[in-house]
Parts: sequence; structure tokens; C-alpha cells
Amino acid sequence: MTTNLPLQPGGVAVAAPRYAAWLATKNDLTARFVAAGRIPGLINLAGGLPEPTIFPTEELAAYAREVILKHPRDCLGYAPTDGLPELRDAIAARYSSPALRLRRENVLLTASGTQSLDLLGKVLIEQGDVIAAQFPSYVGAMDAWRPRAPQYRNLVLEDGAFDPLASFGGAQFVYSVPNFSNPTGKLVGVAMRTAMVDAAHQTGVWLVEDDPYCALQYDGAPLPRMIDLSAERSRQGDYEGPVIHLGSVSKELAPGLRVGWIIAAPQMIQTLIAAKQGADLCSSGLNQRIVLAAMESGLIDRLSPRMVELYRERRDALCAAMAEHLAEWFVWDAPVGGMFVWATARDPSLDTDRLVSIGTEIGVLVGPGSVFDPWAKSRSALRLNFTANAPERLIEGVRRLADAVRKLKSGAV
Amino acid sequence: MTTNLPLQPGGVAVAAPRYAAWLATKNDLTARFVAAGRIPGLINLAGGLPEPTIFPTEELAAYAREVILKHPRDCLGYAPTDGLPELRDAIAARYSSPALRLRRENVLLTASGTQSLDLLGKVLIEQGDVIAAQFPSYVGAMDAWRPRAPQYRNLVLEDGAFDPLASFGGAQFVYSVPNFSNPTGKLVGVAMRTAMVDAAHQTGVWLVEDDPYCALQYDGAPLPRMIDLSAERSRQGDYEGPVIHLGSVSKELAPGLRVGWIIAAPQMIQTLIAAKQGADLCSSGLNQRIVLAAMESGLIDRLSPRMVELYRERRDALCAAMAEHLAEWFVWDAPVGGMFVWATARDPSLDTDRLVSIGTEIGVLVGPGSVFDPWAKSRSALRLNFTANAPERLIEGVRRLADAVRKLKSGAV
Repeated sequence: MTTNLPLQPGGVAVAAPRYAAWLATKNDLTARFVAAGRIPGLINLAGGLPEPTIFPTEELAAYAREVILKHPRDCLGYAPTDGLPELRDAIAARYSSPALRLRRENVLLTASGTQSLDLLGKVLIEQGDVIAAQFPSYVGAMDAWRPRAPQYRNLVLEDGAFDPLASFGGAQFVYSVPNFSNPTGKLVGVAMRTAMVDAAHQTGVWLVEDDPYCALQYDGAPLPRMIDLSAERSRQGDYEGPVIHLGSVSKELAPGLRVGWIIAAPQMIQTLIAAKQGADLCSSGLNQRIVLAAMESGLIDRLSPRMVELYRERRDALCAAMAEHLAEWFVWDAPVGGMFVWATARDPSLDTDRLVSIGTEIGVLVGPGSVFDPWAKSRSALRLNFTANAPERLIEGVRRLADAVRKLKSGAV
Repeated sequence: MTTNLPLQPGGVAVAAPRYAAWLATKNDLTARFVAAGRIPGLINLAGGLPEPTIFPTEELAAYAREVILKHPRDCLGYAPTDGLPELRDAIAARYSSPALRLRRENVLLTASGTQSLDLLGKVLIEQGDVIAAQFPSYVGAMDAWRPRAPQYRNLVLEDGAFDPLASFGGAQFVYSVPNFSNPTGKLVGVAMRTAMVDAAHQTGVWLVEDDPYCALQYDGAPLPRMIDLSAERSRQGDYEGPVIHLGSVSKELAPGLRVGWIIAAPQMIQTLIAAKQGADLCSSGLNQRIVLAAMESGLIDRLSPRMVELYRERRDALCAAMAEHLAEWFVWDAPVGGMFVWATARDPSLDTDRLVSIGTEIGVLVGPGSVFDPWAKSRSALRLNFTANAPERLIEGVRRLADAVRKLKSGAV
């Protein structure tokens, strides 16, 4: 790409600026979704948005006022690049266990899970370096890493097919979303978590455990985190192992606060701080103080059961509607957590990119499988969100999607 | 660098992960400043911090509560990647003039001036690309661009010595802080601003006008912005020219809100949005709404005279103390704005890196000139901040600095 600046009369011939090469590979999903959002009456099952009425508005409004009055310098001045020490301590305490010993130096506060991914890319990726990841994979992670131009290796996590050396060897890091992966909703079991942690310890390859959805589990008990499994291998001193754990308050409290965190070995945290210094100097102290207040008051713990109940009902409503209207053409597993159902076409020649276009025209927006594939080959799956719409809207959205499939199959488009 | 992860018994020999190469070049200034900040009684003239008692705490506490109650979805949900439309419109209106026609599409909201610089690096720099900049230059900008590994060209802006083609030709962009440059405090005059804008239009090279200090002018009238001078060259339609203007509320309101903006041609803004999507997805809607309230209520305008008066008095106190205690060894110009005085040693062999170390030991911290030089050769200048300390502390700091010079000169260290 070159800039299109008009040269003035007398303009001179010099090498013109161009945009960085990665911009030719950017995904236009967000732009398409935003454009679709303007269609009146559209049912949006594409995004990963929370139900907005669930935000604890009154409490957060009160906290915001109180923390500014009580801690004006923390809230309004420059915060430390690594975050307010009180919140780093609170995160360290929250994740600590007899096996996993964390202190402030294990925690970096960031301005969201996306920023955490951006910082990881900055410190670990040079052009052409290998990231091993579960595919289909989170498109936002690929967006974060695009400017560093990595290569991807498909991490095969099927039981019996996992080869630690082939999976981890030579990679700069392994990227995994073990809890209700975006987009597939898949839960990685304990045996596979253990195998990945073992492989990380054996090879020295960093294992990134991205865990934004842990608060959204609808069935069963939480599985051990990989950072816990890693800590159990050493059991001495503060955590120094190869797992890099990412969390945020976007799902359990409010995404608008833009507060996330990275838990890792202190050496890795120091390196990430250097990257954060050049990324935004520091995060908002106000937002960090609000999150700390919401943790200390127990607000986050009180919210959780309400959110889980609401989203479980919506997951069930979506899956029931899919069973009624889409089972002829798609297969899926009802996820035990997260925000998405991943539906794969029975007929692999069904082009879900085209299906998404037709759906948009008749009033339902879903995520095309292709954007979750860095090789952009997979065009026979869909991602459906169930958190942002009430059950009756979910059901109507699925009906429209079934209409879109019929249109596509009949060739009437 | 390689990771120091201990290989477990049975560890296997594979290519170990390493950190990205740019990390070997990171500046350790911040870490040194933070460490020095722990010394009791130290007078810190090194940072670029505001006087914290000047924050409008009561007003911002009230706004924070009100905007969450009134606009909970804007504040607590995901904001658009490009920012809340109402604040984009307000920024566009604030900068618009008969010549400079701006609309929402000319404005990207960012999470600080530092993030603006990071995004620019992401869209314009490939390894080895050339940035032409005034040197000494803002170390935070160099920090933001380190992960893209640019080369720097020294932009000579002396009257009579400015050569547009040699300065701009072949650069990806030109970086300038025309108002009270950090670290030198230098004001770029109208003739040179015009010459730079002409060069940008002639060559098609982007001209970045970083303007964080515009609210902090202590003498004389503001000079025209380069984006205004650029707009006067076309006078037709909305702005499409080569100037990229950066602003923020960090100096005029509160840095803890982390709200900045980029004003540029819509095509450039679109490109920067793609970079922001991967950097943090979006900025905090809460913080954007607070800034909008502070603009609409006139709070920002009311703060300005108080801030200018306070900082003018401090600049005068620092410069008077320097005239009394440092004139034997240093020369400087009293800046008409900004936060810093740049002092150059009369004897070029005076090593200011060593002087900074001695000063730190005897209780005064100042910025060493070397960190503002990407070639790290310049070791005969100092940056002194005057905004963060009351006059009596500034005077005592200068006295200590004079003691440090005497120690250095006497070889008694």
C-alpha cells in the first residue's frame, strides 16, 4: 500500500511512505459487524458482548466517586507502569494457593486481555517466529500479533494424538484458551492440561493460558488452571515457571473498565513492563482503583451467581432452538461455559462465508468460521453468541439462520 | 537473550524461546527513576509529572458518578474501537476552524499520547525504516517505536539550514514536538513550521505534530499549529493532508484518565483503528465520558489559567536558582512553555551521566541528556523539570546539583 496524498504542484519524486506490510492481512470482521449493526431489527449473534443490564451500575458509580475522593493521586496522576501495588497484591492473593505462591512481582496489570496479548507479542515474536495454538483460535489474539507477523502451528490436542516435542519444540510460545475456548467453547480436560504443562517444563517453551471466561461456567466444577498444575511441579518459592496466565474483569465485572492482568515468572513480568512502557506508559489508576474496590467489597463475588444463571438459561435456549431448526445441517456440542456455540456444517461444502452474508440480509448476524483460521481456509463453521440476547431473540435469530441456510441450499440467492 | 527457565530432569534439547531483539535496546531510565524515588528526602527534578494538588478532584469525582449513572452502557460496556462518537465530535469541533474542517472520521481516541505513538509505529514502521526527528527527542516516543526497530535521522531545524528534501525524502514520517519540545523546551517558530508543512505536502511524507504541552504556555500567544498551516494550503473539504496531530488531556486535566487523540486524514485514521483493534480493542468508555463532561462543563477551560500561573512561577524560580548556582558550568534558555529546562554544559567533556549519579547520591534527581539521544552519545546536557515541585524545593534541588558539579569537577568521587 502507498499513501494517497496528493502531491502539490512542484511535488518531488522521492520514495513515498507506505503502510506496514501486516496491514494487508488485517481482518475486516469488526468493520463488517459495525456496518451490520446499523441494519434495523438485525439480531446480532456475532459479537462476544455481555448482557448490558447486568452491569452493577449503582455500585460502580458510587465506587468511582469514592476512590477519586479518597485516592486522588492514584486515580488522576500517572500510575506505575506495572500497576497500582495494592491491586497487584490483590490479584496475587486471589490466585495464590499452597502450591502457587505469588507476589506482586508475578503480576502485571494491563488495559485489557487484548493488551496482554499485544505485550506478549512484542516481547516474544520476531517476524516468522512460530506460535503454536489451538485452531480455530481467537481472532482477537491473531489481531494483536499481526504487527509482529508470526507463523502459526496447529496444536493438536486430541487425546492420544498430542506429541509434546512436535507441539512445543521450536515455538516461541504455545497459546491456549483451556476454559471454553473462543470460538469453539471447548473445555480442555485435566489430562491434556497436565500434558501441556509437562511439555512446557520439558522444553522451556512458554505456555500462555488465556482465561477470560473462567467466571462463566454453567455446569460442573472448575478444572485446575495450568499455572496451578505448573506450580505443583516445583512447590518451592515464588512462581518461576513457564506458564503465563491472562485474566481480566471484562466478563466478570465490566469490559468498559479495561483492566486485565498477566501472571507469570517475575523475569517475564519485567520484560512485559518494558513493552507496556512503550505501549501506553501506564493504565488508568482510576479504573484500577474501581476494580480493587469491587474486589474488596465482594461485589465481584456477589455478581457471579446472577450472571451464571442468566447465561446458562440463554445457552440452553440457543441450543434448544438450534436442535429444532438447524440439526439437519449442523452439528455442535453444548458448551459448559463461555459465550459461544460452535456449529460445524454436516456438508463440508456448505460455505459459511456466503451463509453469513445471506443471514445478514435477512436479519441475523453470526460469526463466520473463516476468521478464526489464520490460513482462512475453514469455511464450514459458524460461531453463535448466546450472552447478549434474551431467549426469544435467540430463538428468532436461529429461525432466521435456518431460513438463510434454505436460501443458500436452494440457490435462490 | 534466552529464557532462564530451568529444564526439568528429562528436559529435551530444542531451540529455546528468546526475547525479541529490541529488548536489548530498552532504556532503563524509568527503573532507575523508580529506584531513586525510594531514597528519603530526594528532590525529583527528573520526571515529567504535574503538581498533584492541581487535579480537580471534587469535580471529576462527581462527573465519574454521574456519567456511569446516565450512560452505563457507554461507560461499562465495550466502547467502539475508534472511541465514543460524542467525544470524537467534541474533539473535531474543538480543533476546527474556517480553514481546518474536521469531522468524526478525522479523529481517533486513544488511551494516551504514548498509545498514539505506539499505533503510529505499528502502521508506518518496518524494521530499518527511517523516522526523521528533532534531537534530542522525547524518550517515550523512542520507547514506543523500539519494538518496530526504526532508524533515526536528525532533523536539522536551524533557520537557513533546513533542507526539505534531505529532511523529509525517504522518511516514513517526520516527528516534531513544535511546542516546548521534550526535553529541550524549544519552541519551533512559524517560518520553520511553514517550511515543514510545505515539505510534507511536497514529498507526501507524513508529518507528526506531537502537541501534549500546548496548554502550558507561559509567555506570548500560541503559534499556529502545523495541521492548521497544512489545512490552509487546500481550503477545500474535510482535512485530507499529511499532518498527523496528537493531543491528550494528560497535561490539561489529569493523566490518570489515559485519554488522548489523533487527528489526521480519514484514510490514516482507518489504518490506525486496525492497529488499535489489536492493541487494546477499545479505550475505557468511562474515562472518555468523564473527559467529555469536563469539556462540556468548561472545567478544562477554567483550570488552564490556574495551571499556567502556578507553573510560570515555578519555571521562574528554577531559572533564577540556576542563574545563581549553575551559570558557571551550564547554559540554557528559559522555555516559554512546557515542563522542562534543558541545560547544556559549557565544557563538553563534563559527563552528565556521571553527574546524575552523583546528584542522586546527594539527594537530587535530574534527567541525563544521553537518554534523549538514540545514538546515546550526547552526555553533556541535563533535563530539569519544574512542574512537580514547589519553588523552595526547586531552589534546594539546584543547590544540591551545584554541589554535585563541584564534586564531579574536584574528582572527589
